[in-house]
Amino acid sequence: MRERLVIIGGDAAGMSAASQARRLKDPDELEIVAFERGHHASYSACGIPYWVAGDVDDPEQLVARTPEEHRARHIDLRTRTEVTELDVAGGRVRSRRLPDGQEVWTGFDKLVVATGARPVRPPLPGIDAPGVHGVQTLDDGQALLDTLRGTKGRQAVVVGAGYIGVEMAEALLRRDYEVTLLNRAPEPMTTLDPDMGRLVHEAVTGLGIRMVNEAEVTEIRTDEQGRARAVVTSDAEYPADVVVLGIGVRPESELAEAAGLPVGDFGGILTDQAMRVRGQSAIWAGGDCVEVLDLVAGRQRHIPLGTHANKQGQVIGTNVGGGYATFPGVVGTAVSKVCDLEIARTGLLEAEAREAGFQFVTATVEATSRAGYFPGAASMTVKMLAERRTGRLLGTQIVGREGAGKRVDVAAVALTAGMTVEQMTALDLGYAPPFSPVWDPVLVAARKATQAVRAHGAG
Amino acid sequence: MRERLVIIGGDAAGMSAASQARRLKDPDELEIVAFERGHHASYSACGIPYWVAGDVDDPEQLVARTPEEHRARHIDLRTRTEVTELDVAGGRVRSRRLPDGQEVWTGFDKLVVATGARPVRPPLPGIDAPGVHGVQTLDDGQALLDTLRGTKGRQAVVVGAGYIGVEMAEALLRRDYEVTLLNRAPEPMTTLDPDMGRLVHEAVTGLGIRMVNEAEVTEIRTDEQGRARAVVTSDAEYPADVVVLGIGVRPESELAEAAGLPVGDFGGILTDQAMRVRGQSAIWAGGDCVEVLDLVAGRQRHIPLGTHANKQGQVIGTNVGGGYATFPGVVGTAVSKVCDLEIARTGLLEAEAREAGFQFVTATVEATSRAGYFPGAASMTVKMLAERRTGRLLGTQIVGREGAGKRVDVAAVALTAGMTVEQMTALDLGYAPPFSPVWDPVLVAARKATQAVRAHGAG
Repeated sequence: MRERLVIIGGDAAGMSAASQARRLKDPDELEIVAFERGHHASYSACGIPYWVAGDVDDPEQLVARTPEEHRARHIDLRTRTEVTELDVAGGRVRSRRLPDGQEVWTGFDKLVVATGARPVRPPLPGIDAPGVHGVQTLDDGQALLDTLRGTKGRQAVVVGAGYIGVEMAEALLRRDYEVTLLNRAPEPMTTLDPDMGRLVHEAVTGLGIRMVNEAEVTEIRTDEQGRARAVVTSDAEYPADVVVLGIGVRPESELAEAAGLPVGDFGGILTDQAMRVRGQSAIWAGGDCVEVLDLVAGRQRHIPLGTHANKQGQVIGTNVGGGYATFPGVVGTAVSKVCDLEIARTGLLEAEAREAGFQFVTATVEATSRAGYFPGAASMTVKMLAERRTGRLLGTQIVGREGAGKRVDVAAVALTAGMTVEQMTALDLGYAPPFSPVWDPVLVAARKATQAVRAHGAG
Repeated sequence: MRERLVIIGGDAAGMSAASQARRLKDPDELEIVAFERGHHASYSACGIPYWVAGDVDDPEQLVARTPEEHRARHIDLRTRTEVTELDVAGGRVRSRRLPDGQEVWTGFDKLVVATGARPVRPPLPGIDAPGVHGVQTLDDGQALLDTLRGTKGRQAVVVGAGYIGVEMAEALLRRDYEVTLLNRAPEPMTTLDPDMGRLVHEAVTGLGIRMVNEAEVTEIRTDEQGRARAVVTSDAEYPADVVVLGIGVRPESELAEAAGLPVGDFGGILTDQAMRVRGQSAIWAGGDCVEVLDLVAGRQRHIPLGTHANKQGQVIGTNVGGGYATFPGVVGTAVSKVCDLEIARTGLLEAEAREAGFQFVTATVEATSRAGYFPGAASMTVKMLAERRTGRLLGTQIVGREGAGKRVDVAAVALTAGMTVEQMTALDLGYAPPFSPVWDPVLVAARKATQAVRAHGAG
């Protein structure tokens, strides 16, 4: 008997699941129907800042697989079609074609919820005015570029100084805008401890971006045509020909929640190890709409990242297709780049470690990416958190230039393996003068953290 | 009572041990005397090819700490002084000052043997002729540069196509020599499997280096003045204005062996976890003169690398100074670079895995260093070996361009932790378009290796 798999959401998680399920099951065994609200499927939302910056010319480059390619593989992908209702008991979804409003019910034997996330839009006056842009979807990116092309003024305000905000600030700077970056926190990049965020602050300022910390946005001021013209904070007003919101995203889980599927503290759908929705036998969920297990903190978190979405989609597709795979969780790794500054973290920040109930020591070192005498050796700062007494690694943050960011992977694997910082000091990492000093910066940090564990960790 | 620590050999391992011991013990508790045959101490021998290439102007840049700096820290470093005899029972060493031949006996309470390695010099006619150079010490590097400056001809022959041979071939190429690289094996870089070495062969040839595989050198032909003029193999003769030997090194363990200290199958001194010479209570050894435990193969090997020497010296200094530290072993990580080609390996090659008694599957993938659409994304080849049935990672080799080499560190940590390739597929590695595709190349290889384990590993 031919089964039908329905997928809600045609981006990384949904279409990875579809592709993997198709690899395992022929069309005469499994029909696959995927609904996607936007024009595009299977694209890299993470690439949008580079498209806006001009590094990527054509948004088609961000598309891993076109709708036509999916269809050629017998995946019935319906773009510009929104799922408006999920009937779990009835095993069906109601969808609406956006161009003509036509609604139909489609039954499913198996369901994948991959509805993604939506940008946070605080309920401020003017927040929905023309000229205010999120950068979550390819359609968002196109709308922003249309605004940039239609605007003569060169003043841009970016609200939010997380990864996306900082990347967008750089993108606009490279398009010759005067960029103001408004940040609610004391330092940018709250994915870093404030002492490490300070390094990003200095670098961003050095690029010529006006960085305003502790800025509470109260209003987007509009002109007579209703267009955004300035961003108002409790302290000041920043003229803006374009406003970009990089405030973060929330799981798009309303549909699932309305259908009675379980969601967690951060609004993400809750799944088991196989990415099956908790309490359900034939419904899976993955990507930016789910919460993931933080293996270090030992609790669920919401970490919207394309790499997790792809892995989860792969796991779902394997399980839907009759195989077996799990997504055991994450350690909270993230990297990003602002011009030549590389920013990375994995594991827990100080505040997160405290919240998780850990007592810990910290160590911060400066080291170089290559042997000190080798041309291009660049300085980086590495900060490490280790559990008091046991010395187990709890987190690592790195800010530096070329060669800094991906070094965080060593700490990510060590975290996954539950290593202590002292065990890390003996790691056999690749050494040659063009790649590293004899003591890799991560090992230098591990050494100093080991000393801190010994000095302060007893008792 | 003041004790005396004697150190034989003033390079990475010896002087790291001295410095760490000095941090822990004041001069009134511990006297430290170090003997070094050459003019320099604490230098980066790994930097010599870059000095010869011209990347590094001044050999002083390769010196981490000068003899004067050591002496200022109350380390009695005696350069140009060779230890000629070790009397273990009597607790003393005999040394000879090279400039004047004066010999003295010096007693010790504790001893560190850090005599390093010496280049292999096959007993061929002409091998000791002027114009034939090893590149093991700073003095060797200076001698080679003197030859280059004194030679009008532009033909260079490098014998041996391991790391040093390939690096030296590039260095000479960049000094505008016509370079021939003679290699005894079927492909260069026998630290890689032949299929991966083939990629290095193609790249080296592409640079304009004449690469001759399966070349058995039989003689260095000299002119009437006794100077090297050509390298003769069983097949051909290669004119040479300068000859560089990059054939590899052997542990410099004769002194220790003559004194009755234990050496292993590869001629290296054998130590325990604390780097204490086996069977001895007050003698430690570290650096290129010792064998190390290969944690993957489960046996001793000789792996002369500056990073191991530094770590071992640190461990020795800690233990000599009354602390506690261990060097648990290595997983066989190495990286190197030829122009923009990055070459890396960790764990076991196919032949090494077979020799160690493993049955295994392999997987090779092509992937890019960054998101495919991101400027500068470069291709790399990743090969992975996994144990049959268990799926445990046994080794990883990477050949590619920028961003390829240090990715081997992820595999090195996974090997240390005993991870399976399937566990690796879930690793939370840093992802952003400038740093990686959504599936990091190492994870792509792990996925394919997992499939290979499932497909071929049963039974």
